[in-house]
Amino acid sequence: MKQPNKAAIKLKSRPHLDQVSELTTNRLSVYLRCLNQLEGAGVRTISSQALAEQFHLNAAQIRKDLAYFGEFGVRGVGYYVRDLKRHLRQILGLDRKLRVAIIGAGNLGLALADYPGFRQEGFEITALFDSLSAKVGQQSRGGVPIHDIHDLKKFVRRDAVSIAVIAVPAESAQRVVDLVVASGIKAVLNFSPGALEVPPGVKLKSVDLTVSLESLSFYLARGETDETG
Amino acid sequence: MKQPNKAAIKLKSRPHLDQVSELTTNRLSVYLRCLNQLEGAGVRTISSQALAEQFHLNAAQIRKDLAYFGEFGVRGVGYYVRDLKRHLRQILGLDRKLRVAIIGAGNLGLALADYPGFRQEGFEITALFDSLSAKVGQQSRGGVPIHDIHDLKKFVRRDAVSIAVIAVPAESAQRVVDLVVASGIKAVLNFSPGALEVPPGVKLKSVDLTVSLESLSFYLARGETDETG
Repeated sequence: MKQPNKAAIKLKSRPHLDQVSELTTNRLSVYLRCLNQLEGAGVRTISSQALAEQFHLNAAQIRKDLAYFGEFGVRGVGYYVRDLKRHLRQILGLDRKLRVAIIGAGNLGLALADYPGFRQEGFEITALFDSLSAKVGQQSRGGVPIHDIHDLKKFVRRDAVSIAVIAVPAESAQRVVDLVVASGIKAVLNFSPGALEVPPGVKLKSVDLTVSLESLSFYLARGETDETG
Repeated sequence: MKQPNKAAIKLKSRPHLDQVSELTTNRLSVYLRCLNQLEGAGVRTISSQALAEQFHLNAAQIRKDLAYFGEFGVRGVGYYVRDLKRHLRQILGLDRKLRVAIIGAGNLGLALADYPGFRQEGFEITALFDSLSAKVGQQSRGGVPIHDIHDLKKFVRRDAVSIAVIAVPAESAQRVVDLVVASGIKAVLNFSPGALEVPPGVKLKSVDLTVSLESLSFYLARGETDETG
């Protein structure tokens, strides 16, 4: 039996940035994570149905999300795990190395510097930056060096850093983001609480860990209401 | 002029758990964060319009989200900041202390134990748990004690812990979640990569930090496509 001609699977011309919601890209990330597990387990092909069942996802949603970018399924086979993984990495822009700087070498910054998930998908944490002279010159457990925040611009240019992660206290976060923007970085992942401003053309994504905890609190409060009332 | 009778503002009978999406509760958390800032700045009343403009939110969405739980606006005034804050805390179940245990006293667990946002909203991080005997008996910088994971059940009962945060490597995450569930905890916030299983009646929320970074990667890839093509 002939292998299908892989070159014949074409990516659709990329839809415009604004048309793809962050919820969609988040799901693509989740699919990629599942495919990594499948490939690790030696699985070569999978249907959207089996993918959904195995990872508690929605088969129709999977098909819809993927159809947005091209036709990846093969009739009677499903998806070739390795091919779909390659396509998803391409769609998510992971088919090249992305260099990341972490600003703030406190507990959180150090934890993020050594977070295994980042490296796994091809992100390279090039450096931590801090303003405390006692920290500058040290490194994370995993060996990420800590530089002086004043040298940020120099390192961003030298190492072609494209993403900054903000892990500083709320009171210095806006000042740090301004420095990051001035260094030429166009994508910022923020872990500080509170609203931050960036100019147009810079993408800011905030991760508020309290929000996650509060949605559990909401669930617990409702659960108790349901039980007692 | 008479103050409106605050007792007259009634919470709607709580809608059923399944009807309120996690996106809604996430937004309520964001509103609460904004109201905290406003109260700190001495602001006493605010309209949905002003709230939206100041924090880059959507005024219609704010009104819709709040209307789901009751009528909190006062004609010609907008919202009383302190009252709305109190209502949101009540809706989110933050009007009582919620005790949290963090499993895993590595970089991430230690960072989370001292994360200021948790404490601010009334969550109390009672303890870290780890299986490494070298860590047991130590504490985080902020003073959260590290206990032996084998004592989890005992401490969960003694301290009435209701939420567990999982900050262990992927390979031990499912084993740890099983321990957490066996200890009687009904809400789990997971920072480990990979899918975890919990029995019905236990709420699991996963925070995958790689997903956030990948949505920035997607944005950068698109941005470059838009510029060059």
